[in-house]
Amino acid sequence: MKRIGKYTIMLQNQPKIIASAAIVGKKEAEGPLSEDFDQTFSDSKLGEDSWEKAETSFLKKVVELAIKKANKEPQDVDMILAGDLMNQCTTSSFGLRELNIPFLGQYGACSTMAQTLMMAAIMVDSGAASTAAAATASHFCSAERQFRLPLEYGGQRTPTAQWTVSGAGCAVVGDEGSIKIVDVMPGKIVDLGIKDAANMGAAMAPAAATTLFEYFQDTGTSPQDYDKIFTGDLGMVGSDLLRKLLLENNIDLGTVHNDCGLMIFDCDKQDVHAGGSGCGCAGSVLCGHILNNMASGKYRNVLFMATGALMSLTSSQQGESIPGIAHLVHLSSNS
Amino acid sequence: MKRIGKYTIMLQNQPKIIASAAIVGKKEAEGPLSEDFDQTFSDSKLGEDSWEKAETSFLKKVVELAIKKANKEPQDVDMILAGDLMNQCTTSSFGLRELNIPFLGQYGACSTMAQTLMMAAIMVDSGAASTAAAATASHFCSAERQFRLPLEYGGQRTPTAQWTVSGAGCAVVGDEGSIKIVDVMPGKIVDLGIKDAANMGAAMAPAAATTLFEYFQDTGTSPQDYDKIFTGDLGMVGSDLLRKLLLENNIDLGTVHNDCGLMIFDCDKQDVHAGGSGCGCAGSVLCGHILNNMASGKYRNVLFMATGALMSLTSSQQGESIPGIAHLVHLSSNS
Repeated sequence: MKRIGKYTIMLQNQPKIIASAAIVGKKEAEGPLSEDFDQTFSDSKLGEDSWEKAETSFLKKVVELAIKKANKEPQDVDMILAGDLMNQCTTSSFGLRELNIPFLGQYGACSTMAQTLMMAAIMVDSGAASTAAAATASHFCSAERQFRLPLEYGGQRTPTAQWTVSGAGCAVVGDEGSIKIVDVMPGKIVDLGIKDAANMGAAMAPAAATTLFEYFQDTGTSPQDYDKIFTGDLGMVGSDLLRKLLLENNIDLGTVHNDCGLMIFDCDKQDVHAGGSGCGCAGSVLCGHILNNMASGKYRNVLFMATGALMSLTSSQQGESIPGIAHLVHLSSNS
Repeated sequence: MKRIGKYTIMLQNQPKIIASAAIVGKKEAEGPLSEDFDQTFSDSKLGEDSWEKAETSFLKKVVELAIKKANKEPQDVDMILAGDLMNQCTTSSFGLRELNIPFLGQYGACSTMAQTLMMAAIMVDSGAASTAAAATASHFCSAERQFRLPLEYGGQRTPTAQWTVSGAGCAVVGDEGSIKIVDVMPGKIVDLGIKDAANMGAAMAPAAATTLFEYFQDTGTSPQDYDKIFTGDLGMVGSDLLRKLLLENNIDLGTVHNDCGLMIFDCDKQDVHAGGSGCGCAGSVLCGHILNNMASGKYRNVLFMATGALMSLTSSQQGESIPGIAHLVHLSSNS
């Protein structure tokens, strides 16, 4: 591996995405990307007796499916990098405990899909693993009751609020496949003092702008060098803010940018306010829609940058602001 | 990097520990390892207005100190890998947000020090970073009220219960120093069905036995090939169980093994029941006592294996068992 500029890491062997899988719940299946998911579930509990267990089941199912689509068995996977939003990342530890694969828990909040994919790519590029999996999941009901209010309370949502995606994504990284991981950039923690936990987009946009700006500096590229730049789950408010922050630095995203949180739902018709969010948002959109369209040749040169809000219920209750982070992965397709 | 056997990763450039720092609270400073800490605090809140903020302050202070001891500035550190026990790992995100260093949040519960050190070593060995830091922290009061009971309740502790260490550790990894990281092994999740959250040692011991057994298989070595084998925080109950489980596989740890949770406190005199625990236990003992004794030449060939219990309050309340994990780092000193 070689460092380019200040923060970018070039993967000299360009590891490939062997296969990926995306599964979601009912509301996501009714959205514009329905065709891109491998499996959808109309029962929000997936037959489990709690939402936390349903989220765990999402993760287990998506990892097993991705490994199967890669024509591999769990024992062929040298390590798995996974994380989620639940306290102590229990979705990952309980979801993966039966697979017997070395596990490295990652915490990046909603940036987890980019972080785990970056880590899996570094592991394969360096020879630490021949095959590594990256995965994440989230669930609307478990997130809502952990971070906000009991669902039964029926609290009214503000216009800036986002809707946590019930879904999961997994990518298996190795040395075969048409989509390669070219370079990656781990993000820095950026905190401009936003304290409204119902406006995550605004809290994460400064981190997204920082990562993108520094990536363009490091690589000497501009937005127009890419077919698409996908952010994780900035939603409407955060996406607008990202454009503005970059324009202040003379970078115009033009029509190149889209946000997974705006793509997964029809925001007007599906009553999700500012868009989708949660680890499973960027996770299921990357591992479904984005990689499908790269495999088909529609997109060849893509930046995938998922963003995370690094707060907890306790930190909010103690009056803390919301630090954000954005990790970037540069993907390229030969298709 | 090269894989040895089934799970072990050999670091071909053998990255070095440039410097490390360990800081702890009052009780830890009164224990047998008092001489090995860089800083101790008699005020359990470190001047902050909550225990969570005190834990955050521990992490910030230890990272700044380790970077200073390495004769570096924060901007010289290419990335930091850190994690903790707080919900959504807020100790790490809030503790590090002012340092402006690319951050990759790790979740391994009490195994975090081994996981972050392993990750930092892989990053430096592969060229993804020239300098990487690994850090973790925990606090008795924040852990107690998050996982168990309000402190004010004064709940009685069972004999198998362990005492969460208030403290932190940080190691800076790069290409200079007398202690090198030879090889590493990420652990698998092992769950034998233990459900007692006041007996973490028993929940983690099977994972520790699995990792050690497989490491000896992979490398063709035995306990007697090492000067010391340190486990993270198995405490009394878990350490006994580890010995028994390994003896069943004809591996005798003899006098080579010690446990950070048994070393940091005088278990009888300090009323800590089965010993110390928490991320900061293995973190402060490694980054203080163990590395100090390697630098002085007392220990030359050491296995450091921290263990984690991958549960949450919610998973326990929902009747789940406690999955364990153990990550291993092999250290060698030229001193």
